[in-house]
Order: sequence, then structure tokens, then C-alpha cells
Amino acid sequence: MPTVRGMADDAPGRAAALIALDWGSTSFRAWLLDGAGAPLDSIRSADGALTVSGPADPARTRAAAFEETFTRTCRPWLDEHPGVPVLCAGMAGSNHGWAEAGYLDVPADLAGLARHLTVVPAGDSVVHLVPGLRVTGPDPDVMRGEEVQLLGALAAANDGGGNAGEAAVDDGGDRAGTVVLPGTHSKWVHLADGGSRVAGFTTAMTGELYALLMRDSIIGRLATEPDVARATEVSDAFVRGLDAEAERGDERGLPALLFTARPLALAGRFDPAEVADYVSGLLIGAEVRHALREHPADVVVLCGPPATADRYRAALERGGAAVRAVGEDAAARGLWRVALDAGLAQPATTDTPTTEEQTA
Amino acid sequence: MPTVRGMADDAPGRAAALIALDWGSTSFRAWLLDGAGAPLDSIRSADGALTVSGPADPARTRAAAFEETFTRTCRPWLDEHPGVPVLCAGMAGSNHGWAEAGYLDVPADLAGLARHLTVVPAGDSVVHLVPGLRVTGPDPDVMRGEEVQLLGALAAANDGGGNAGEAAVDDGGDRAGTVVLPGTHSKWVHLADGGSRVAGFTTAMTGELYALLMRDSIIGRLATEPDVARATEVSDAFVRGLDAEAERGDERGLPALLFTARPLALAGRFDPAEVADYVSGLLIGAEVRHALREHPADVVVLCGPPATADRYRAALERGGAAVRAVGEDAAARGLWRVALDAGLAQPATTDTPTTEEQTA
Repeated sequence: MPTVRGMADDAPGRAAALIALDWGSTSFRAWLLDGAGAPLDSIRSADGALTVSGPADPARTRAAAFEETFTRTCRPWLDEHPGVPVLCAGMAGSNHGWAEAGYLDVPADLAGLARHLTVVPAGDSVVHLVPGLRVTGPDPDVMRGEEVQLLGALAAANDGGGNAGEAAVDDGGDRAGTVVLPGTHSKWVHLADGGSRVAGFTTAMTGELYALLMRDSIIGRLATEPDVARATEVSDAFVRGLDAEAERGDERGLPALLFTARPLALAGRFDPAEVADYVSGLLIGAEVRHALREHPADVVVLCGPPATADRYRAALERGGAAVRAVGEDAAARGLWRVALDAGLAQPATTDTPTTEEQTA
Repeated sequence: MPTVRGMADDAPGRAAALIALDWGSTSFRAWLLDGAGAPLDSIRSADGALTVSGPADPARTRAAAFEETFTRTCRPWLDEHPGVPVLCAGMAGSNHGWAEAGYLDVPADLAGLARHLTVVPAGDSVVHLVPGLRVTGPDPDVMRGEEVQLLGALAAANDGGGNAGEAAVDDGGDRAGTVVLPGTHSKWVHLADGGSRVAGFTTAMTGELYALLMRDSIIGRLATEPDVARATEVSDAFVRGLDAEAERGDERGLPALLFTARPLALAGRFDPAEVADYVSGLLIGAEVRHALREHPADVVVLCGPPATADRYRAALERGGAAVRAVGEDAAARGLWRVALDAGLAQPATTDTPTTEEQTA
């Protein structure tokens, strides 16, 4: 993936208030935000935290590599807007990243993120790293980067940024609100106190399992590329996977159910171009069905890229949950929220459209 | 893996009756058997069917590559014992192998294997390929190579080759006998008619999932090599994996349960050297628990290499099944059985020890 920039048409007239970074394991995303939190410009590259520096490098070498990547990639913004504050979430804040940004222990108020930033120097700037969230106890879990997506998703959902006519995140009843952030490692977050407090979360490595199976397994070897025209659809093969998992997953178990892709394709029961979607249906089906069993939810807020979100929506609705989908650029919105809470960015007093209105 | 030979000490005085090949996707195993089916010599190499020839090669090129590999590897035997019959099971008989050896449709009598051999020329010899087994209908499955391991395992179990004092394979009651052949793709075989007939079977890709996760996933990245001294043991970490899967697999599902290895290791709840065994426990636990749920069994015949068999035994006994373990060299014994049934090999009338007695 080359570095890609996307500048807003009306950017030249607006003042920059924040550089917001979502620096994950395998990707780097950056936004230049104005005083209303709306994007003036954006950058996306493949310089993920795993690529920038190896875990065996000494801390000083690692920090220098992160600083160099950041200053090189964001050079035009830093030159044009000297002194603009920088806020960064994601694996850049891990113990193998730029600097260890720590964790807030769950249950945790999301407002606490802004009170626990870690500062690292970067040339003439300083970068503020957002902490992750951690579940301790018998059933530990961690997230890093998703906490700002979560903040942004909640802001979008509560502002009506989701699809209209559905209930709010915290429905005020016995069931706490649930947010799912699908991905390589999907996060299922359970909320309390009207959505301001994370009660707990769990991770499912669904996306990574799918990638491993399609790239290197005996199933991947007999799969051909899915029809590109249908790649964003919830295809028949995906629904067959969902159905098979719902009907037989408890009886047969995933290690056996996944293998069925091979004899079904060999027997001509579906086309090699459908194998990937069928396997996706089995895996997303298993993830969603178990997540709803462990934490029943009437409404689930869903935040991810469109093609993935469509598949999760199908699985969630099959499981009886109503879905409130919000846009995938929740990270920028969440970072803006943290920057405001921390006093890093000052909201402009103009009537420029807000991020909320733009992404709704 | 280099080519490895292992000649019996008393081999020079005994006549050769059969070359038996178990030619799988990733390994080549060959035995030179005497007139009692006992090994005179053996060869093992990494020239698996996937290595010998690509699926895109024309059939003629593929056949030539298999013939060359066979004649080169078994040259000393072919020179010393001209005209010795050759019998071959495994992926060499697939549509991407030496020649397509077809399938017997299940339910199938195991005695039928010997009546459906496919003949291919190999220099001055001919090679007889054993067919695979196939389940048709709504829930198809295939095996190729395991059918001769199954024959050998049943012969060993019924001759008392398993651990003493346990019930026979077919217990004569309502429950048919079950045989499990653990591996990259574990086969669970359900028998009828006193063990002579395969009623059905299913495959679980447990071994392949484990290899993918350990080699390429975020879990594999934080795992260190297991302690070699404990590699054949049912370790504490393996049992923790079994326990976690049994207690929480239905609620949490495998995509989420597998990920727990990461936060547990990050939290210091186990050592990086224990990650692999914990993941093995989760996967084998899921396979075995679901297989016993789908087809309840009081006694299961277990046939695999010792370290793997120990783990499956622990999972099976945890699930309430008694285990009858038989040696892993069942393939040679099964191939000998097919060769006798087909009239390819003639049993010697000496009192040389039989394979049964040697492997018991």
C-alpha cells in the first residue's frame, strides 16, 4: 500500500488544530483536523508498528525509527502548522512500539483516557500517546487503538450517526450496551453507565484466522479469487457458511466444520470462487453467535469498513440483534474527543461543519 | 527431512513379498515386507505428493515425476528383488497425484479396497494404487491413505494389539465402533458390522490450524519453543487448554478462546514456552469434545504417533471415552492386508514373526 493523501476541497481556508494518528500493527493512518475536529487532510500508509521496528531492537533504536517514520510521513503538515499538537493511539504505544503508553484497567471510564497520556518527543513537536485498555483477573484481555474507535463509534451512535429509528447504545434496561469493532482481532465491548464506562471486553481472532486459512491452508489452495463485483456483498456462499455454523457449529465444532469447505468444493457443491465467502461465513458466524450467547444484546453498535460491516450485520441480525452501524472513520473522531478532554486541542468557535455532521 | 532407511537386523535371510507405500501430501513412507508382512527395511523421506509435482502439471508430466521419485527412492529394493509387487496408498492416488485411484463410496466394506486397485507402470514394475473413501450426500467428506491405516489399526486392536483389558472395537451394542486417526487432518471413522464396514467419517483440520497459528499468527509470535524434554508429555499447559475449552468453548467459541493465549501470556499467567501446548489443548479439546458429542462412543481406537496419541488420549478420557491405543505403523499392516486380499502377496508358510506380533 503506497502512502495515500486525501485533502478536503475547502482545506486551505481552515486552521489546523490537531494531528491525529491511529498507528496499528500493520497500518498507519493520520488526519489533520481543524478546530471542529473535521479532517483537512489525511494520510494512510503500510508503515505499521510491526514494520517500523522489530521487537528485538533496543528501546532507543525503536523510538528513533518511530520518530523518523512519523516526521517523514507528516512532514508537510509539521512544516505548514508548526506547533500543532499530535495525539496517537494504537500499537505505537505498546511495549514493542514508540514508547509504552500503559493501560487503563477495566472497568474504566472512557473519559480517563485523556488523563493518562504519555509524552514522547518528535523533532520540534511532542506526541501524546493514548493508553490502551486492559481486563485483569482470571480472563485477561487487552486492546490498543480500538479504545479511540470505540469513543468515536459511541459519539456517532449517540448523535444519531447510526441508522435511524433504532435504540441508543445503552438501552437503560438489564442489558448493557454492546459495541463490536470487527477486524483482524475483533473487539466486543460491553458498556455501562449510559455508554461512558467500559464494563469489559473480549477479542476474537476471526480476521486473522480467515487470512491464515485463505493464504496457507489446504482450503486456501482450492479457493479461487472471489468475484470482485460481489466482493462487498453478503453473498449466497457467505450465508451458507452462516447457516451451516448456526445449525451445526455446536455439534460439530469449528476444526471439523472448516474442513467441510474442501469436500463440498471437490464435490462441486459450490464453486472455487465461493470457498472464501463460505469460510468467512463459518468464522464470522462462530464469532457472532458465541459473542451473543456470552453477552446477550438487543442492540449492537457496529463499527467497521463497509464490506466487513455488511457481513457482521447479517450475522448479528441472524442472531436476533438489532444493528446500529456507524462509519469506519471512528478513530479520528475518538482522537478528537480525547484531545478536547485533555485540553490539547481548543474547539474553534466558528460554524465549520463538525466531524459528527460530516461522517453521519 | 532427509531420506531415512531402517533395515531389520535379520533381514538378509528373509524373502521380500511386497513394497508397501504410504505416499501422503507431505511425506513418503515405504516398507519392504517379508512373506509374513513383517518389515525387512523401511524408507522415509519428505518427497510428499505436493512436492513431487504441481497440480497445474499435465497428467503425463505428473506421472513421470512420481515414477522417477519412486524408482529412485526404492532403487535398492527393486534391483535386489525384481518383480516384487508394489502397493501404494495416499495422495499419490489423487487427481493431482500419480494417477486417480478413485474412491469407494461410504458405507463401504473395507474388504472392497482390494477389489478396486488402479495399476500404473513404473519401469519394470507395476504399482497398484489403493482407492480412497468418500462420503456423498449433504455432508460430503474424503480420505485417501487413512483407509489403510484404519485397516491396520483395526487388525491391531482386534488382535489385542491395543492396551489390554478393554472392549473390542465394535462393542455389539447400540453404539458403533469409533476409530480416530489424529493428524494434520484428523479422521473420525464410525464402523458397523463388527468393524468390517465403514458407516461414515468426518475430518477435523486441527493439526493444520495448529501449524498455521504457531507459524504465522500473533499467538505464534509470542510463543517460544516448548521445552524439548517435555515435548512428548501431556503438559500442564495442554491440560489448561483442554480445561478452558471444555468449560468455556460452547459459550465463548474458538475464535475468541484461541486469542486468550495472548493476554494470558502477556499477563504472565503462563510462560511463553507454554503457549504452544495451551493452544494445542484448546484445539484438540474442541475437536474431541465435538466429535464425541456428534457420535457418542464408549471406546475409541486411537492410532497415531506417541506424543500426539498421548494428547488425544487425555482429551478422550476427559470426555468419558475409554481409549484403545494402537501403534502408529498401522499403514504398513493395512497395506499388507490389502495385498493379501488382492492376491498380490502370498503369505509365507514359515514361522517368521508376523507384523501383528512385532508391532503389538
